[in-house]
Amino acid sequence: MGGDLAPLMVIEGLEVSVVRHPGARFLLVGDEAKLHPLLQRHPRAAAVCTIRHAPEAIGNDTKPTAALRVRGSSMRVAIDAVAGGEASGVVSAGNTGALLAIATIVIKTLPGIGRPAMAAIGPSARGDVVLLDLGANVQCDARNLVEFAVMGDVFARTVLGLTAPSIGLLNVGSEELKGDDTLRLAAETLRASHIAPQFAGFVEGHDIAAGTTDVVVTDGFTGNVALKTGEGALKLIGDLLRQVFRSSLTAKVAYLLLRPSLERLREWLDPRRYNGAVMLGLNGVVVKSHGGTDAEGFAHAMDVAMDMVVHRFNDHIREDLTRIAGLMALAAKNGALEKESGGGARLATAP
Amino acid sequence: MGGDLAPLMVIEGLEVSVVRHPGARFLLVGDEAKLHPLLQRHPRAAAVCTIRHAPEAIGNDTKPTAALRVRGSSMRVAIDAVAGGEASGVVSAGNTGALLAIATIVIKTLPGIGRPAMAAIGPSARGDVVLLDLGANVQCDARNLVEFAVMGDVFARTVLGLTAPSIGLLNVGSEELKGDDTLRLAAETLRASHIAPQFAGFVEGHDIAAGTTDVVVTDGFTGNVALKTGEGALKLIGDLLRQVFRSSLTAKVAYLLLRPSLERLREWLDPRRYNGAVMLGLNGVVVKSHGGTDAEGFAHAMDVAMDMVVHRFNDHIREDLTRIAGLMALAAKNGALEKESGGGARLATAP
Repeated sequence: MGGDLAPLMVIEGLEVSVVRHPGARFLLVGDEAKLHPLLQRHPRAAAVCTIRHAPEAIGNDTKPTAALRVRGSSMRVAIDAVAGGEASGVVSAGNTGALLAIATIVIKTLPGIGRPAMAAIGPSARGDVVLLDLGANVQCDARNLVEFAVMGDVFARTVLGLTAPSIGLLNVGSEELKGDDTLRLAAETLRASHIAPQFAGFVEGHDIAAGTTDVVVTDGFTGNVALKTGEGALKLIGDLLRQVFRSSLTAKVAYLLLRPSLERLREWLDPRRYNGAVMLGLNGVVVKSHGGTDAEGFAHAMDVAMDMVVHRFNDHIREDLTRIAGLMALAAKNGALEKESGGGARLATAP
Repeated sequence: MGGDLAPLMVIEGLEVSVVRHPGARFLLVGDEAKLHPLLQRHPRAAAVCTIRHAPEAIGNDTKPTAALRVRGSSMRVAIDAVAGGEASGVVSAGNTGALLAIATIVIKTLPGIGRPAMAAIGPSARGDVVLLDLGANVQCDARNLVEFAVMGDVFARTVLGLTAPSIGLLNVGSEELKGDDTLRLAAETLRASHIAPQFAGFVEGHDIAAGTTDVVVTDGFTGNVALKTGEGALKLIGDLLRQVFRSSLTAKVAYLLLRPSLERLREWLDPRRYNGAVMLGLNGVVVKSHGGTDAEGFAHAMDVAMDMVVHRFNDHIREDLTRIAGLMALAAKNGALEKESGGGARLATAP
């Protein structure tokens, strides 16, 4: 029931998704009175879909704490199905904060994971790049960042199919002394971990679009701002180019000549192709679709969820977490010392 | 002596600058043996320029603390000239951290300013936008953020010529409850200040390129990442478009048809037009040019410094600081309480 054009957009997305994932079965959760007639008109989806009635829906402005109390919400009922083992994963286009809060409480985090993180895939000059955290954790300690790196590695391997993805830690400079104690402690821990050969050290903002590393790890505040700033810059250029192509008859002719190449570029940068922010570190697959997406975008979010289920994302995370358990204890201990000594403050170093 | 193509690039920039600023006089600081012959070949610049010999130069990899000890560096001698009242401002294309450290120690901060900030102007859909801090302060308290807002306001008024620039505080969401205690305390303080009518509350990453507000205030870590992420996204699109325009003969023809409009767009987005990061809050005008810029870019950094001098930027800052002195004491006190209670941690709120 979440998203600007729900529930129709979700069902149309399902109609796309069922063709791509033969053999999969879907649980459609929400107001049965609304869902039933819509599903009737989408026979392909209807054939592999069961409706589960949920009397309530979480609004976009509902606070996570309030959302947690609504036991009959479509979001809660869907997440309950994952927690109960009925569903392998959940995809929602609803309220992000509510989804994260309910999923964390109901599905719970994987053993050894402090906090779940949100990750998404974006375009870069050298192929797709995974960015995390995108806002689940506004402030992070070194242990969180190390966990994000481990989860980002597994995500890039399972969903992007990379063998040994390179991993960068976002900072204001690439030199070892840049940034704060938290970042340096995280870097130190990663250099001692099993992903050390893949760890490329600190990267900067411009490295995201340059694709310097396959995975970029940062705290949720910075990641959220970076993601939205990058999207904003792309939108600005897109709008300006549209103006250029409409500015004269000559420009319109030129646009027609360029159309095939520009269409390819547009498709490659299409936000729908990158739709589906995943909540990593939970004991189940949880994918957040953009609320303003369309059927194609929602189907892409479904693809991401399917990839994570099929490639047993969480099993890989569990394996890798056991490999860094000792290190994490060290990072957590150092982090605690850091706090006791009043440290953890970012040093004032210029860019 | 700083910058990839110094000192020639600086002298060529001066040759552009002297025409734009008739009546201005310039002190060219560096290795006289190198500067003298170069200046000879630039008679317009030579006519209004005095060379001051400085035997040393700060390298790009020199740490700020080490740079501070080199008393005969061109950077130090130039900054000494500002501190001594001989020069109204300094423009350098050298090591950013060294410039900030030396300027802070030698020129000192304005009374009432806790820490200087770095600001720059960038393009947006609704005209130029001022972003600060860009990395001078990797971690900031509420008082710093309020000071940045006041300085950003004066900067937008004096350099962009706006009457009442709108000001946004960068966050992961626009709702009042988003972000951490520091951000909420800064917002609260701004709502009680003389710039309250201009304060638009929280803005998000995409608001920078959208130009939602004229000034975007954030801590130096986030600002640095946002600036570089935005630049990276613009570069990615620029590179991809160049590929499109070179992909076939048809594309090349189309490019020729579009050339005038695309050139205008390129000029508008030209990084040289936005060159010149200013260090605000110091008792003198200090502008940092990009090290990799050319003469035109350096001349733009000179323009920014000139604007700040001519429009008496620091006098306006001084006036406005007295207007918020009481509020700042409050913010500082609340900030201290925040720290005592172990607060200041960013709350985990989803985007």
